[in-house]
Amino acid sequence: MNEIDIIERIRSRAGRQAMELGIGDDCAIYRPRAGEDLIFTTDQVIEDVHFRASQPAANIGERALARSLSDIAAMGGDPRFCLVALAVPQKRGEKWIGDFYRGLLKLARRTNTALAGGDLAHSEKIYCDVMVCGAVLRGKALRRDGARAGDAIFVSGRLGRPWDRKIVPRLALGKSLVGLATSCIDLSDGLSIDLHRLCVASGVAAEIDRIPVMQGSTLDRALNGGEDYELLFTMPPRHRAPRGTSRIGTMMRADRTRQPGAIRFQGQPVEPRGYDHFSLATGL
Amino acid sequence: MNEIDIIERIRSRAGRQAMELGIGDDCAIYRPRAGEDLIFTTDQVIEDVHFRASQPAANIGERALARSLSDIAAMGGDPRFCLVALAVPQKRGEKWIGDFYRGLLKLARRTNTALAGGDLAHSEKIYCDVMVCGAVLRGKALRRDGARAGDAIFVSGRLGRPWDRKIVPRLALGKSLVGLATSCIDLSDGLSIDLHRLCVASGVAAEIDRIPVMQGSTLDRALNGGEDYELLFTMPPRHRAPRGTSRIGTMMRADRTRQPGAIRFQGQPVEPRGYDHFSLATGL
Repeated sequence: MNEIDIIERIRSRAGRQAMELGIGDDCAIYRPRAGEDLIFTTDQVIEDVHFRASQPAANIGERALARSLSDIAAMGGDPRFCLVALAVPQKRGEKWIGDFYRGLLKLARRTNTALAGGDLAHSEKIYCDVMVCGAVLRGKALRRDGARAGDAIFVSGRLGRPWDRKIVPRLALGKSLVGLATSCIDLSDGLSIDLHRLCVASGVAAEIDRIPVMQGSTLDRALNGGEDYELLFTMPPRHRAPRGTSRIGTMMRADRTRQPGAIRFQGQPVEPRGYDHFSLATGL
Repeated sequence: MNEIDIIERIRSRAGRQAMELGIGDDCAIYRPRAGEDLIFTTDQVIEDVHFRASQPAANIGERALARSLSDIAAMGGDPRFCLVALAVPQKRGEKWIGDFYRGLLKLARRTNTALAGGDLAHSEKIYCDVMVCGAVLRGKALRRDGARAGDAIFVSGRLGRPWDRKIVPRLALGKSLVGLATSCIDLSDGLSIDLHRLCVASGVAAEIDRIPVMQGSTLDRALNGGEDYELLFTMPPRHRAPRGTSRIGTMMRADRTRQPGAIRFQGQPVEPRGYDHFSLATGL
């Protein structure tokens, strides 16, 4: 099977519902709908950094898309389409590429994300970069900078997930938070550092009372491990925790004793740790 | 300098004129303007495939953006913003990253392209994937599939460029062709194969009379070499060649003697050659 066949096969399964023009020209064309803002994110997965080549190709493809979809969820967005840049060693061949796309496209279909285009190359190691475009009602995206002192802090699910576990982007939850949450971020690097970032962006500090730890995991991993891909968000205190989420604490005014971004857990200061992002991957 | 400093420095120079929200959240936010279609492309540049690490980092950064901008030019678009995924070996360090972004951002400023976000990771070899979003008047994008029998065929510039020469994306020309050209493609893989693709998409065949060859190059390289990044386009025969372009031939009706996509040069059949794309990189 040559390059044109591979592309034809991918194209035939790409789903172009959202697109004015999909795979096959110099650019894909998207026609914005009235009253929507578009949101964009891109995430890399790299062999021997984010995964081993011995993992099933379909899982790698699914994971590559899931990480970017988690960012769309964190903004309260609806995914519209993705562009997939993939570079693979020659020896991997068409079977590997087919399996990779099978995994990716299965999640794409389930989340209504069209595959609008991309780039295919050879390289020594497997490298993939997935850009996702999503849509939100104009001005309604969930941002990091809207938390206020007094807001309650929530997380979805339970934290401390093993790094290779399947990622389920919290798209439905993210959408349900639009108009309710004052801020939101996805937990890709670890609760302590992601909460720190949200607090810095919002100019507040955080008091954490409790953390929902995944069975078999540890408090340290729940606090400082990465790759949970749950949502961390804030709401005014009158709101109840949405289904599947737990209230973990309260936002505090930053003052002379608490810098913006300072976190305490059960009264003790917490250093923002978690992954050393640059040794992995980090959003600009 | 740590990761946050690197990102801060990049962010301060990113230019966010086009963006509702730029670098620093889970996603960047773009607010579409009334009456515009958005166009998207992504292109990888990979160490030892598209460049050697011994090349200046600023040139690699510029080239990475220029390749995607050339696709925007080919659709008649105005670039709006880019997302840059970059993975570099640890040993390259902050200086290399700074230089890479300096080169990229210089071209970004010149072409009014905001750097809206991206991803930064470590890897064994340098990988970069640049996604560019551009805008065109609704329904007016230059596509590959609009050429008709009788249309005149044009190229910009002179062909047969050495592969490492600076890429100048033909953005002004592309925009000037909106409403005039019936089809357009950028010459990234070679005239014979890119013209073949355009003909296949449009269901026509091509007769080429002459090819403008760059000084010091050869007809073979002009016909089958890649990396020219000039525009190939068609217009109804009544139009004159726009400044800086040459008429090279005429589109013909496909029939029993000519398949859609068939090309003749001075009466002789031409096989679509050019780069073996999959061994390099190819747009999906």
